Amino acid sequence: MGNPITATLIEQTCRYIPDVQPADAGTRPAGERPWQKWLDATLGLRDYWYPVELTRNLGEGASRVVTPLGEEILLMRRNGRVHAIENRCCHRGARLSEKPLCLSDDTVTCWVHTFTYSLEDGSIRTILNMPDSKLVGRPGIKVYPVEEVKGLIFVFIGDIAPPPLAQDVPPGFLDEDNAVYVAEIDIVHSNWRIGCEGSFDPAHHFIHNWSTFAVDNRLPMSLGWVPDLDRLADVIQYAAPQDGPKGFTRCASDTAMRFDTTIPGRGETPDTHYTVPMARGLSEERLRELQEHDFEIDVALWLPCGTRISPWPSPGVSTGEFFVPRDANSHYYVQYGCRKVGSEAERKAWESGELGVPLWKVPNVDGFTKEDIEAREAIAKFYDAESGWDREVLMGCDLELLMWRRFASEHARGPVQQEKHVQGRFRKQAPCAAASNLNQA
Amino acid sequence: MGNPITATLIEQTCRYIPDVQPADAGTRPAGERPWQKWLDATLGLRDYWYPVELTRNLGEGASRVVTPLGEEILLMRRNGRVHAIENRCCHRGARLSEKPLCLSDDTVTCWVHTFTYSLEDGSIRTILNMPDSKLVGRPGIKVYPVEEVKGLIFVFIGDIAPPPLAQDVPPGFLDEDNAVYVAEIDIVHSNWRIGCEGSFDPAHHFIHNWSTFAVDNRLPMSLGWVPDLDRLADVIQYAAPQDGPKGFTRCASDTAMRFDTTIPGRGETPDTHYTVPMARGLSEERLRELQEHDFEIDVALWLPCGTRISPWPSPGVSTGEFFVPRDANSHYYVQYGCRKVGSEAERKAWESGELGVPLWKVPNVDGFTKEDIEAREAIAKFYDAESGWDREVLMGCDLELLMWRRFASEHARGPVQQEKHVQGRFRKQAPCAAASNLNQA
Amino acid sequence: MGNPITATLIEQTCRYIPDVQPADAGTRPAGERPWQKWLDATLGLRDYWYPVELTRNLGEGASRVVTPLGEEILLMRRNGRVHAIENRCCHRGARLSEKPLCLSDDTVTCWVHTFTYSLEDGSIRTILNMPDSKLVGRPGIKVYPVEEVKGLIFVFIGDIAPPPLAQDVPPGFLDEDNAVYVAEIDIVHSNWRIGCEGSFDPAHHFIHNWSTFAVDNRLPMSLGWVPDLDRLADVIQYAAPQDGPKGFTRCASDTAMRFDTTIPGRGETPDTHYTVPMARGLSEERLRELQEHDFEIDVALWLPCGTRISPWPSPGVSTGEFFVPRDANSHYYVQYGCRKVGSEAERKAWESGELGVPLWKVPNVDGFTKEDIEAREAIAKFYDAESGWDREVLMGCDLELLMWRRFASEHARGPVQQEKHVQGRFRKQAPCAAASNLNQA
Repeated sequence: MGNPITATLIEQTCRYIPDVQPADAGTRPAGERPWQKWLDATLGLRDYWYPVELTRNLGEGASRVVTPLGEEILLMRRNGRVHAIENRCCHRGARLSEKPLCLSDDTVTCWVHTFTYSLEDGSIRTILNMPDSKLVGRPGIKVYPVEEVKGLIFVFIGDIAPPPLAQDVPPGFLDEDNAVYVAEIDIVHSNWRIGCEGSFDPAHHFIHNWSTFAVDNRLPMSLGWVPDLDRLADVIQYAAPQDGPKGFTRCASDTAMRFDTTIPGRGETPDTHYTVPMARGLSEERLRELQEHDFEIDVALWLPCGTRISPWPSPGVSTGEFFVPRDANSHYYVQYGCRKVGSEAERKAWESGELGVPLWKVPNVDGFTKEDIEAREAIAKFYDAESGWDREVLMGCDLELLMWRRFASEHARGPVQQEKHVQGRFRKQAPCAAASNLNQA
Repeated sequence: MGNPITATLIEQTCRYIPDVQPADAGTRPAGERPWQKWLDATLGLRDYWYPVELTRNLGEGASRVVTPLGEEILLMRRNGRVHAIENRCCHRGARLSEKPLCLSDDTVTCWVHTFTYSLEDGSIRTILNMPDSKLVGRPGIKVYPVEEVKGLIFVFIGDIAPPPLAQDVPPGFLDEDNAVYVAEIDIVHSNWRIGCEGSFDPAHHFIHNWSTFAVDNRLPMSLGWVPDLDRLADVIQYAAPQDGPKGFTRCASDTAMRFDTTIPGRGETPDTHYTVPMARGLSEERLRELQEHDFEIDVALWLPCGTRISPWPSPGVSTGEFFVPRDANSHYYVQYGCRKVGSEAERKAWESGELGVPLWKVPNVDGFTKEDIEAREAIAKFYDAESGWDREVLMGCDLELLMWRRFASEHARGPVQQEKHVQGRFRKQAPCAAASNLNQA
Repeated sequence: MGNPITATLIEQTCRYIPDVQPADAGTRPAGERPWQKWLDATLGLRDYWYPVELTRNLGEGASRVVTPLGEEILLMRRNGRVHAIENRCCHRGARLSEKPLCLSDDTVTCWVHTFTYSLEDGSIRTILNMPDSKLVGRPGIKVYPVEEVKGLIFVFIGDIAPPPLAQDVPPGFLDEDNAVYVAEIDIVHSNWRIGCEGSFDPAHHFIHNWSTFAVDNRLPMSLGWVPDLDRLADVIQYAAPQDGPKGFTRCASDTAMRFDTTIPGRGETPDTHYTVPMARGLSEERLRELQEHDFEIDVALWLPCGTRISPWPSPGVSTGEFFVPRDANSHYYVQYGCRKVGSEAERKAWESGELGVPLWKVPNVDGFTKEDIEAREAIAKFYDAESGWDREVLMGCDLELLMWRRFASEHARGPVQQEKHVQGRFRKQAPCAAASNLNQA
C-alpha cells in the first residue's frame, strides 16, 4: 500500500484553509476546487455496490422497497435468491411493490396489466393477456446486480459491468474467517457525505463525552484530535490499487489529543480551566499519560461510502459503517462489528449477535454512534439549505477532510448520481419518444 | 347513435403504438399529439357540470367546502336549496366557510367585515356597517349554478351559460324511473384522468382477481380483455350528438378475453402454465366456454369524467362513476348504482340502499373498486412526477385509451382548467388593477 | 405630537379606493404605490427591537430557539443574563441549541467541534482542542443585543447600533409605574402584517359579537366602525418624533358605529332588519345612545409591529400586542395588559396576573382576541398564495389601513427583511469566499 501523499499536495490543500496556511502561501486558488466532484455528489457516486438491507430482514417470499442513490428499487427473495428490480412497470408506471407477483421461477408480473419481466435482465418475457404483443422480448425494467454476503444485501448502481464486490468494501471484509454482525439499518436525516465526513472527522470526539459507552467504561474522550501537519504525509495512508478497494487511513497514535484546556477570559472574566468530564479528578501526570498513550487504532474511509475503525471498541474487533445515499437529505446508516473467528461455533456466536453485542456492545449504535447521528442531523440544515459547502469556515483539523474529498473526487469510479438517473433510464422526451426508444432497443 | 370511427382513424392512432403498428405505417408522427388537450387537462375540463357532494350529507343549515377543478367552493343548504359560492370574500379574501352567515333569505354575509352578497348572482347587496358604500351593487363573489338530483349535488364550473345537466351525465341518468344510490365520496390520490382511463381500460381486469366480490362469487376475472383491431370500428360506439351527452362505448362481448396463458421459460427454466385463481380446477372446455361467453356488458366513458358499466354487477343494474378533479394529484371518486324501478316503494328501497347494497353490493366500493383505487394510486407517481404521459410504453390493448383521449380532446365543450381559474376571476394584476376591475364591472 | 395629516394626503390615498374617491379624482395613479415598502416587508422590518420570549419562560440555565424575522436565534439565560446568539456554529453549521454549553462565564462552546465564542461579540475566543488556531479572535457568530424588561425579552434585529428600546415600544410602556402582565405567546398562521392591520382595522369588530368576553358582559359589538372622511385629519394622530416611538392613533369616539342595519331584499324577498345579537331587545333609543356614546378609547399602531388599545377592556387598563414576524406565513402573537400602579404590592399583584387576569380578563386572549386570530388565519391564504395584496377590493373603512401602510413605509427605520439576511451574514459565495471573509475580517 504505497502512499502518494506528498508535501506538495498537503501544501496545495492548505491554501484552502487560511487557518493553517503557510506564511508564503500566496494567493488562494480561485474557481473550481480539486474536490468539486465530492461537492456535486448530492445523491452519491455511481458504478458502485451499496448495501441496502439485512439478510435477516428479507425472508423467503418477502419484498421491500429501498431507494439507494434515490433509485426506487424493489427487493424480493424468491427460492432463496434476492432480486433487485426497478419498482415501476415500463408500461404505465405501476409500482410493482404493491403486489409483487412471481408467477414463474424467473419472472415478475405487474399486478395491473400483466406485463411479465425476466428477473435476469428485465426484458419483457410476455404479457399475459397479449402474448403476441410486439413488445415481448424488448427491454422492460432495470434489473440490478445483487450480492448477498456477510448478512448484507448489496446492489450495484451504475452503468458498467459490475466489478467484484471486494473492490467496494474495506479490505478483508469478505474474508472467510471474518465474522460480521450487522445492526438494524437507521435512516439518518443528513446528506450521506455528512455521514462519511463526520465519522472520520478527527475533531469530533468531544461529542462522545456524553456517550453512555464512554461514561459506563469511564473512558475519557478527548477534546478532539490534532494532526501534526508536518508529519501528515507519514500519518495518512492512501490506498488506490488498480483492482482493489480505495481508501484513506489514519492511525490514532499519530495524532495528538488533549483532555483539558484553558478558556481565556476577557476584561474582568478570569481564565477558566476545563477538563472533559471523564478525566476529572485525574492527576496532571495521568492526563499527560493519556495524551501520549500509544492509541493504535486505524480510522479509515473507503470508497464509495464506508468507514472502518480497527480495533474498536475492543481488542480484535473492528467496527464498520456504510453511509448509503437515500435522497438529497437522508442516508441509510449501516453499522457492523466484525472479528476473525477460528471455528464455525465462534462464527455463529458472533454473527447471531450472541457474542459481540452483550460483551462489547458491537455494533454500538445506542451507546456511542447515537451522538454521531445527532451531530449529523444538527449540521444537515447548514449543508442542505444554507450553502454550507461554500460557507464552512474550516480549521486545521479539517485538512484531512479536504484531502479525503480530493482523494474521493480523484478516485471515484463513476460519475456522480444525478436526478435524471433517479427518474429512470429515459430522459424526458418529445412526444412519441417512448416509441422511438422501443425501436432503438 | 352514429359511429364516426373509421379504419383511417384507427390506423392513424395505431401509429402512436409501435406494438400494433401496421407494417406499412411509415414514419411515426412528430410533434403535438391529436389528444394534446387531454394531456393538458391536469385540473380538468371547464364548462361542465360536476357532482361534488351527496344530498344526504348536506342537511338544512349545513355547509361544506369542496374544490372541484381546484376551485374552492362553499356549499350551503338554506331553506332547502343548495347554494354554491366562491369561498372567499372579494374584500380581503376571508374564507366564508369559517362562519357562514345568512342574515336574510337570499344573502350571505362575510363574518369579518360584513360584506353581504346576493346568493343569486354574488353581487354586493350591502355592507352592514357601510350601506352607502359605492361598492354596493358591484360584482362580488362567484356564484356557481347548482342542480340537485338523484341524491347528488352538481355544480357548473365554467364561463358559459350552463347547458342542461342531462348533457353532462350518461344517457338515461335523469330518467324518472331510474333510481340511483350513491356511495360515500372517496378522495383518491391520483389525477382524475388516471381514474377515467383506469375504469375503462380493457386490460386492467387482472387486478380484480383479488376483489372480494369476485372471490365470494367465484367469478373468474380475466387476464385482461383484448380488442380485435380489425373489428374496432364496429365495436366502439362514439356518441357525439349536438345537444346530448358525448360518450364512448364498448361492448364486452366484442372483446376477446383469456383466463389462462403460458409464461415461456428461458434456458433451464421450463414454461409455466398460469390460470387465474378463480378459474383453477375448471376444465379446458369450461375455460374456453368462459372465454367465448357472450358477455353483454357495455363499458362507457362519458364527458367530462364519467363511466357507466351496464349491466353490472347484476342483471338490470348499472354502475356509474364520476372522477371529479380536485387538485393536480387527487380526485373525488363518486360511485353509484342504478336500476329502473316500477313503483315509489321500489324506488325508495333502492335509493335508500336498502335494496341494492345488501343483495348486489351496489355500489361495490369495498368489494370491487377498492382494487381500482389501489391501481390508480400505484401509477399516480409515474404520471404526476415522472413524465409518465411522455414515457408510457403502450401496448395494443391501449389503443382504445388513445382513441378516448382523442375523442375527449375533440369533443370537450370548454377549455382545460388552468391555474389562473383556480386563483380566481382576476389575474395577478398591476397595482390598482383591482380598482380598475371595479370600474369596468 | 404634531399631526402631519393633510387633506391632500387623504385625497391622494382616496384615489386608491374607488369606493370613496372624490368625484374630481381624475385618473388613478399607476405603478408603485406609496406603501410599497409595506408590501415588500414579507419577513418584517429590520433595525428594530422585537419581543421574542417571556421572562418567566426562560429560567436560569434554560435555552430556547426563536426565529424573529426568520433569523434562527438561540436564547440562553446564564447567571441571570439573557444571551441571544446565532444558533449556528460558523465552522460547519452545527445547531448550538442541541446542547448549549457554557464552559466559562462569558462564552458558549459548540458541542461538536469545540469552537468557543464570546457571548459579548460572538468572536472566536478559543477552540478547545486547537487553542493555537489562527481563527482565534476572528468573528464567529452573530450576537444579538438583548433587553429584558416588563417580563419580556427583546432582541434587536438589524445592522445599526441599536437605538434605545423606548423608541420601539408604545410611549409609556417602560415607565416605572407601568405594570405589565404578558400572556403566553401564540404562533398565529398568518403573515405579521395581517396581524397589525387586523387589530387596528376599524371595520373588523363584527367578529367580536361571538367573543365570550362580549357575550358574558352583554357588551354589544358594532357592525364595524365608520370613519368620517371629512374629519380624518383631526381624528388620526400621527406621531413621528426624531427620537421617539412612531405611531398612528385613532380615538374611537371620533368614529361612527352602528349596531343594526337593513339588508335590502330583491324581487319578492322582503327587506330584513338585522341587529347584532347583544343589542337585541334594546329600544331604538338605547341603540342610538350606544351609537353616539362617547367611546374614549384610543386605538394605536406603533412601529415596527405593535398595537395599543387604551383604555381596554376596563378603565385604567391598556392592552397591547406585538405581531413579530416568524416566517413568511406565521408570526408570534404577544399580548399584554398594563396599568399604572401606586405601590410595589400592587405592581406584583398585576405582574403576576393575580390582579388583572381574574378580574378584567387582561390580557384577554381566550375571551376576545381568539376571534381576531381566527380572522387572521382565515384571510392568510388570500394574501400569502392568491395575490391578495394586489387583488383586495377595499372599501371606505379601509382608508385608515392604507394611511397606516403609507406611514409605516415612510417612517420604517431600516430596510425590509430579505431572505439573504435569514440565510446569514454571508451571501452565497464563490468557492473559497468563506476563506476570503476571514481574511477581510
